[in-house]
Amino acid sequence: MKTLTVIKIGGNIVDRPDELDLFLGNFAKIDGPKILIHGGGVMASEMSQKLGIPIKMHQGRRITDLETLKLVAMVYAGWINKSIVAKLQKIGCNSLGLSGADADSVPAVRRSPDPLDFGYVGDVDPAKINVGFLLSLLGRGITPVFCAITHDSNGSVLNTNADTMASSLAIAMSGEYYTKLVYCFEKEGVLQNTDDESSVIPLITTSSYKALKDKGVIKDGMLPKMDNAFYALENSVSEVYIKNAANLNNHKGTLLKK
Amino acid sequence: MKTLTVIKIGGNIVDRPDELDLFLGNFAKIDGPKILIHGGGVMASEMSQKLGIPIKMHQGRRITDLETLKLVAMVYAGWINKSIVAKLQKIGCNSLGLSGADADSVPAVRRSPDPLDFGYVGDVDPAKINVGFLLSLLGRGITPVFCAITHDSNGSVLNTNADTMASSLAIAMSGEYYTKLVYCFEKEGVLQNTDDESSVIPLITTSSYKALKDKGVIKDGMLPKMDNAFYALENSVSEVYIKNAANLNNHKGTLLKK
Repeated sequence: MKTLTVIKIGGNIVDRPDELDLFLGNFAKIDGPKILIHGGGVMASEMSQKLGIPIKMHQGRRITDLETLKLVAMVYAGWINKSIVAKLQKIGCNSLGLSGADADSVPAVRRSPDPLDFGYVGDVDPAKINVGFLLSLLGRGITPVFCAITHDSNGSVLNTNADTMASSLAIAMSGEYYTKLVYCFEKEGVLQNTDDESSVIPLITTSSYKALKDKGVIKDGMLPKMDNAFYALENSVSEVYIKNAANLNNHKGTLLKK
Repeated sequence: MKTLTVIKIGGNIVDRPDELDLFLGNFAKIDGPKILIHGGGVMASEMSQKLGIPIKMHQGRRITDLETLKLVAMVYAGWINKSIVAKLQKIGCNSLGLSGADADSVPAVRRSPDPLDFGYVGDVDPAKINVGFLLSLLGRGITPVFCAITHDSNGSVLNTNADTMASSLAIAMSGEYYTKLVYCFEKEGVLQNTDDESSVIPLITTSSYKALKDKGVIKDGMLPKMDNAFYALENSVSEVYIKNAANLNNHKGTLLKK
């Protein structure tokens, strides 16, 4: 079975031109088929402030009214996505920017307003992802670059969590490939001590994850990321990595295994 | 030879939800392969004002500094492009939003700063358009939806005139298809008298165009549109129409023929 690498980069890296260029150079070097998913929250929040649109968050997730939807579609699918694609073209990685609306690649369901109305936020069912279309791109040597925008099949785009978008894509493709999912962010990996970047935990399994949660070592913003990762492992994704974007091509960081 | 329909809609229609929905409904009904190119100048100018970015125009063309480039990429490739794709998905037209950077579909060359520096503005050579990629989409029943953003193959996106983008795409595809190019806008067609919407000139040929220019009937903003149209006809495009977006599926409007 051929290997597919699915990589997610967060908004902090996207926002720093030098780090982004370094990351994209490393990304382009990865052999074989690959898919990139990018965030963009930092730039979206900046643009919110410039436009005077209040930022509403709940447990790190953006509440998306119509004005905010317009804004995130502009920032994620417009400037960030096309900038990344143009940069990848320059270094010889033939890429194609996508939202989930494009070619109906990632349909989603608008989240129920009960118990909390997140607005235009979509949840993805990996089984609905248009695998055939993505295979046709990969087969032509084209690298899909996704922003975390999906659609409701009823005429509206939806804002979607980029970590979930990445795990959903990895799960959907794992019937066709030995799939590696890599979460790149600004830290060195999952840390034993959040203040100490040298305290990276090299391997976490389902059982050690439970223990780390019980001890309070893994908490707050890391929890949804880790839950996404283990959900992916339970659904046929072979390996998940959490690491610093600068270490994409080496063995530093945390490996998660079932 | 199969027929391909290449349609351009302007920013005025894109900005009016009811007219846009009507247009997209008619667009979806067109049999056979088709490509849509959309403008977005009205919304870009609105967003410029909200963000306090001065709008600089020269003879109807936008001068694009880096802030303006970011803005037009956001508005054209982000909100407008993805909204149109989501709306088309709803009505069963499987579409894919593209900028020229995506899959290197439409590379461009940054315009010379001499005699006037338009900034990040790209000119397209139809011979460089990635016809093979577009054929592969059309062959899968996917309708490409282009915003007028291209790239310079050196890491930057570029702002491009949407009329020229449309004529370039039509020219590039005319080796593979009997190609019809349709410019949709808010007027009924090319008018004998600009104040009288009933004065549509039904047919204009290369020689009658010359006479209409000499008499001053065709002038100002219509000149570049007409020049694009005749350039397309001289480069293997079979038919060009200039008409109201509401008349997409009927015979009203102006037909241009070599």
